[in-house]
Amino acid sequence: MTATTFEDFAAGCRRDLDRALTVWLPGPPVSPPRLHEAMQYSLLAGGKRMRPVLVFAAADAIGLGHPDARTLALPAACALEMIHTYSLVHDDLPAMDNDTLRRGRPTAHVVYGDALAILSGDGLLTEAFALLAREPVLEGTAIAQRKLQTLELIARSAGVGGMVGGQALDLQWEGAARQEHPDDDLLRLQDVHARKTGALIRAATGAGAIMAGGTPGQVATVDAYAIELGLCFQIIDDVLDVEGDAASLGKHAGKDEAAGKLTYPALFGVAGSRQRARDCADRGHAALEAAGLSGHLPAILDWTLTRTQ
Amino acid sequence: MTATTFEDFAAGCRRDLDRALTVWLPGPPVSPPRLHEAMQYSLLAGGKRMRPVLVFAAADAIGLGHPDARTLALPAACALEMIHTYSLVHDDLPAMDNDTLRRGRPTAHVVYGDALAILSGDGLLTEAFALLAREPVLEGTAIAQRKLQTLELIARSAGVGGMVGGQALDLQWEGAARQEHPDDDLLRLQDVHARKTGALIRAATGAGAIMAGGTPGQVATVDAYAIELGLCFQIIDDVLDVEGDAASLGKHAGKDEAAGKLTYPALFGVAGSRQRARDCADRGHAALEAAGLSGHLPAILDWTLTRTQ
Repeated sequence: MTATTFEDFAAGCRRDLDRALTVWLPGPPVSPPRLHEAMQYSLLAGGKRMRPVLVFAAADAIGLGHPDARTLALPAACALEMIHTYSLVHDDLPAMDNDTLRRGRPTAHVVYGDALAILSGDGLLTEAFALLAREPVLEGTAIAQRKLQTLELIARSAGVGGMVGGQALDLQWEGAARQEHPDDDLLRLQDVHARKTGALIRAATGAGAIMAGGTPGQVATVDAYAIELGLCFQIIDDVLDVEGDAASLGKHAGKDEAAGKLTYPALFGVAGSRQRARDCADRGHAALEAAGLSGHLPAILDWTLTRTQ
Repeated sequence: MTATTFEDFAAGCRRDLDRALTVWLPGPPVSPPRLHEAMQYSLLAGGKRMRPVLVFAAADAIGLGHPDARTLALPAACALEMIHTYSLVHDDLPAMDNDTLRRGRPTAHVVYGDALAILSGDGLLTEAFALLAREPVLEGTAIAQRKLQTLELIARSAGVGGMVGGQALDLQWEGAARQEHPDDDLLRLQDVHARKTGALIRAATGAGAIMAGGTPGQVATVDAYAIELGLCFQIIDDVLDVEGDAASLGKHAGKDEAAGKLTYPALFGVAGSRQRARDCADRGHAALEAAGLSGHLPAILDWTLTRTQ
């Protein structure tokens, strides 16, 4: 199961993902050509594909490398990347974070205008759910129930209790006065991150586990792992925004500080933040070990901790 | 089954709908309070509730007034109204149609700002799918399959092949040069309308029929009916935009002409357009009669034809 290195595994995931996205994203004449072009521009711009890799790794860890696990998990991997991409397109809009560079290229609204950028995001979100309702096309009650459970998990995680709610809170608190007690700042920061980044990362491992036929205990284990992974990922994201430069990040660095955003480095310094990220990774590893689950899941924790972009 | 008048039936539908929307739209602490307020502002602003009434009428016609038909159809009725509302919020944005009045009140972005308006639309769309995946909470393969089929139908109709694609084409062709041949103008106009308004109307009757356990033949009949109804609705919409005033429409009248949009009255005049609407209604009635389906479906055709707002 883990005969391949994590790098090979991740490269295989990205290859399968890009092929499926190209096939499953409706093109002309179903979609107007320019709308399709705008969706593809953002969706096929590369990126880490972290969420799809997570879906596959969770399915693989539970399906013990059975080839069906990959087939069952592929629609959720695609849907989560479509939803992640839509959120970036909308967040980058002038009315939101007003960012002009993403994944090393001009953002969608810079190239296609605000109206088509909004519609391309709406289209990606909507088609993600159409895909989840249809694929994989397999008969049987068990599969239908898994699809509905996965669909609800992903929708809740992307919705007002998750990602959309996190972006609303982020905008609300941007540049807002700090709380009197530093603990309140931390609670706010954790709430925004848990919603904005954490929810979709948890949905990715949950979707992979559910589609692969995981037991409730296994689904709970990958969720405990994903909570730590998501927090680790976000802390390092904040650190890289302070340390990085636009060339290696593919997006503008230092924008958090410029926007007066509350971040981990602002609260704990860079060294203190990195220590917190390491603590998250340790807890994530421990959760997997206690349940006897592994595959490529541990390697994703290590990659998250040491990544430079 | 049709002991009640259409007016009583529609009023009952709207009452059930508003009650369910209030319960099912996630409020605080799941949603940030202001985001929830913005979603409610647009969702509970009244409106004709045409799509939900259609869902119930189709379910009722097939379920022969059995109370379960209403229970089975309620989630789809709510989801379609949430999706319709999100599309209005996004279409009204300054980056799109830039409209400031809707359902007799200032539009969402006027009250809450562009960022929260975009997010409230994203939230309504996402939560609609979460709702469809979960409700109605009933065991059994048949129900799970109906839910997946309904979910895919609604997502496809709202997606790039339907509503979102229609809005993209509408923006693209707004004020564009007329075609050399008038028939090409009509084809463009029909394509935009079929996507932008027609698709969701067809999804409404289809969802009601599928959830009530309709046969493939019954689902096809309500679809044939809905195609005529959608076209009739859109022609009258264009006519009312020419004839109406803001007070009775609850939105700005004459905006199509001001925007240089292609409309039925521009192509066929008001009398010619009304005649085309009557022809649609006749064909819709014929489709129902041929299949022996009725209930309140015929009354909706008549209301669409004679409405003044």
